[in-house]
Amino acid sequence: MTTSNPQQTSAYHTLDLEGVRTFIASLPSIAGRLGGTPEDWHVREVSDGNLNMVFLAEGPQGGICLKQALPHVRVDPTWKMPLDRTFFEASWLRAIFPHVPDLTTECLHFDAEQFILIVPSLSGHTVMRTALMAGQYHPAVAAQVGDFVARSTFATSLLAEPFERVMDRRICFARNQTLTRITVDLILIDPYHDHPRNHWADPQLTPIVAALRNSPSVLARIDSLRLHFLSAPQALLHGDLHTGSIMTNGTDTRIIDGEFATYGPIGFDAGLFVGNLILSFFATPDRAGQAAHLDMIQTFWTSFTKCFLDLWQNREWAEDRSTLYYATTDKSTQNFEKSLFIQNIFQDMLGFCATEIIRRLVGYAHIADFSVLTDQPTRTTRQKAALLFAKDCLEQKKPLKSLADFLELLYQNLSTP
Amino acid sequence: MTTSNPQQTSAYHTLDLEGVRTFIASLPSIAGRLGGTPEDWHVREVSDGNLNMVFLAEGPQGGICLKQALPHVRVDPTWKMPLDRTFFEASWLRAIFPHVPDLTTECLHFDAEQFILIVPSLSGHTVMRTALMAGQYHPAVAAQVGDFVARSTFATSLLAEPFERVMDRRICFARNQTLTRITVDLILIDPYHDHPRNHWADPQLTPIVAALRNSPSVLARIDSLRLHFLSAPQALLHGDLHTGSIMTNGTDTRIIDGEFATYGPIGFDAGLFVGNLILSFFATPDRAGQAAHLDMIQTFWTSFTKCFLDLWQNREWAEDRSTLYYATTDKSTQNFEKSLFIQNIFQDMLGFCATEIIRRLVGYAHIADFSVLTDQPTRTTRQKAALLFAKDCLEQKKPLKSLADFLELLYQNLSTP
Repeated sequence: MTTSNPQQTSAYHTLDLEGVRTFIASLPSIAGRLGGTPEDWHVREVSDGNLNMVFLAEGPQGGICLKQALPHVRVDPTWKMPLDRTFFEASWLRAIFPHVPDLTTECLHFDAEQFILIVPSLSGHTVMRTALMAGQYHPAVAAQVGDFVARSTFATSLLAEPFERVMDRRICFARNQTLTRITVDLILIDPYHDHPRNHWADPQLTPIVAALRNSPSVLARIDSLRLHFLSAPQALLHGDLHTGSIMTNGTDTRIIDGEFATYGPIGFDAGLFVGNLILSFFATPDRAGQAAHLDMIQTFWTSFTKCFLDLWQNREWAEDRSTLYYATTDKSTQNFEKSLFIQNIFQDMLGFCATEIIRRLVGYAHIADFSVLTDQPTRTTRQKAALLFAKDCLEQKKPLKSLADFLELLYQNLSTP
Repeated sequence: MTTSNPQQTSAYHTLDLEGVRTFIASLPSIAGRLGGTPEDWHVREVSDGNLNMVFLAEGPQGGICLKQALPHVRVDPTWKMPLDRTFFEASWLRAIFPHVPDLTTECLHFDAEQFILIVPSLSGHTVMRTALMAGQYHPAVAAQVGDFVARSTFATSLLAEPFERVMDRRICFARNQTLTRITVDLILIDPYHDHPRNHWADPQLTPIVAALRNSPSVLARIDSLRLHFLSAPQALLHGDLHTGSIMTNGTDTRIIDGEFATYGPIGFDAGLFVGNLILSFFATPDRAGQAAHLDMIQTFWTSFTKCFLDLWQNREWAEDRSTLYYATTDKSTQNFEKSLFIQNIFQDMLGFCATEIIRRLVGYAHIADFSVLTDQPTRTTRQKAALLFAKDCLEQKKPLKSLADFLELLYQNLSTP
């Protein structure tokens, strides 16, 4: 049995390229997937994220991706960290894969001593953030991400399953505290205080940061979002659904890197994705590109809600009605309940979207999107506009009741000097 | 280590009177508390609740109460049930006792093989329901229960502790699924459907039950309360806070029987207590007694909110500010946040209060309160009024914004023929 709080044991050692080859060779099903003999395999390190070692191994017949946790943050060895994050990623994959086999990768193997996770490699796929920065906009991808959020969250929620199964899964993921602490600190606390992890190069952003920290309604909203994130275990979340966690070739799209998986409000996953689209929107030089972003946001939300409501509709006819959300059989009441449920997700999405925009500009972990704006004054203007948009989302001086209100506010902030 | 899903093992056996004596004799600290020798002890069975065996043992120097789980419901041996409920009661006591040492009993011993819990015995205390039925109204008791709910829930919430500690406790109590299933079924599902467990003797209640089941807004509210109960782990709840779980001598009050402990919305504990006061209110023959009940409800709510807000106020000055609910230091925003938090608990309380009233009149487990009304037509009138009051609470055709609105509705329902 996998331990619940795995610690580094004497058996654990960090693999190098040859170690990866030897490790794979010891697993017949994985070796068989590559084909040939170990000498035929091409193994290379492709570590890119902040936390883990990642290797690709290719053989004559196929390829795999091997991920190993380190006892520290990969990019900062002084930041010690337990190894269990690949355990949670493997558990997340096993929980959601049956519901989204076309939108993520299968967990082929998990080693509980070495904290190694193996999944099929993706060939010909690009990181979505990279594609966006290159001006490649695929509305289909936004629709697929909407489907992904709908199917993975619905399936793991009380709407789909008896509460006992939901609680068992909550028990598992409530142990993912190290990475949940990172989310809470980096997204929902640090940017609203002085903290050494925060940084931004452009002094013109400083007054806006001060305005955020001096706005009672911003801070009240942040408080309520933080409490909500930690006390509304609606569904199993990806937990870090930015455009760097999405691989696509324009047709086939896979959501990866679920190590931040936790039970929380569905609007958190939706908000992080939309927040990253909005960062990309503000970093996009041309009008056509900007319009494409708004299309993607619209497509994502439409796809998410349609898929989620379809699943709910079909669930009504399942046999074990007692596990189902509602007792009422009155259609108009059911529809009212459903629209209220979706509206709550929408409001959560707006809030978490704003926190993601802010933390990516003035917190610890920035994103590359704005580097495409090589003109510094333009970049500054756009980053300021993005921060002010986030502030508006949090304050909602004019209530944002629909996606149309939200998109209108986006355009307003883009054009405000 | 205590197993998470304890099953009946070969070591387990149900104790009889002599078994209790021998068991206590094997525990020096408990035997010492009784004093004398085992032959000096007076042991008797006082099982009263539906689930467990309960014994009192008295010696020359003191007394203890011993509770043992059975592998079935005590009053229905065909209803099989795992033994772990005393484990959860012991865990609940250990979690909350430091915060309410004057309002509950200490866990003196828990045996993980025999599923035996030992606490000090209460001498001279009466079950609160029995006291109410005898016309003994102690406003101090309502204030103490308000303090109990405030202190036990605040201390186990995200307002008081880093989320990691809250999550660890949620992990523990999310395993209490057998008793949580009872709550969900008996309180939040069965009464709103035909189910063999439901029963009521008086045919005059039947049309009101039909009206409840035909009201879209009642059913929508029940759906939302059920989902809320299972997806808002605000604090560690008692989980079954009716007037039979409270022992008092009018001055000293102790809340017992926490085996239904679970993380949930604070308004659930408050609602069950107030619901039972309201059942007692409708079962009270005289005006003075009725007025005393309204005083108790008012006192409970005032005491709860004052104690909860005081704890929150003091928490602001604690050192580890990062664990605290809010980032804002603006006093008026803080007060707004707090009043919103309390208002949400109030609305939850109204909803769960209504579900408790309904299930105690037409569900599986009725209460004795109405037996004091020996005149059958009066009893019928009052039970109908109680059900209609619960229906009004769920429908809120006229919104109930304050305790004054709520108490006014109560009096209206009492006087409506």
